[in-house]
Amino acid sequence: MNKAVFYHAGCPVCVEAEKNVANAIDKSKYKVEIVHLGEAKARIAEAEKLGVKSVPALVLDGIPFHINFGANLSVLK
Amino acid sequence: MNKAVFYHAGCPVCVEAEKNVANAIDKSKYKVEIVHLGEAKARIAEAEKLGVKSVPALVLDGIPFHINFGANLSVLK
Repeated sequence: MNKAVFYHAGCPVCVEAEKNVANAIDKSKYKVEIVHLGEAKARIAEAEKLGVKSVPALVLDGIPFHINFGANLSVLK
Repeated sequence: MNKAVFYHAGCPVCVEAEKNVANAIDKSKYKVEIVHLGEAKARIAEAEKLGVKSVPALVLDGIPFHINFGANLSVLK
C-alpha cells in the first residue's frame, strides 16, 4: 500500500485542501493519514525532514507536494 | 461524476506532480483530464478563469489547488 500523509494546521486553506485534495485520493491505492501540526507539534520535525515547508502539504510516498499556501511551518513551532 | 483537471506545462515539477498527485486521484469518483497548457494555449484563458495562477495546478470541481511551483501562467502565453 502506498502512503499519503496530509499535513495541515486547521487553517481555512488547509480545510479546503483536505476536503477536496486529500479526500480525492484513491483509498484503494493509498493509506491516507491526516496530521494536524498545530495539535501534533512533535511531528513538525518529521514533516520538515520530508521537505515540507508550508501547510497544507501532501506527502505521497515521501515526496512533498505543497498545496496552495496556508502557513509556513516555522509559525507552528 | 466529479471533475478533476490537472493543468501543467511539461516542466519537471509538473511531471512529478502528475506522476504522483494526479495519479493518486480516485478514478471512481473523479473524471481526470490532463491539460498541457504549453501545447493547448487556447485553454490558458479557461485555466485563468478557474483561478489558476501557476502550474502545476489541480482543479477539483472548479476549485483550484496549486501544487508546488513550476511556472507562472503568464510565461506560457
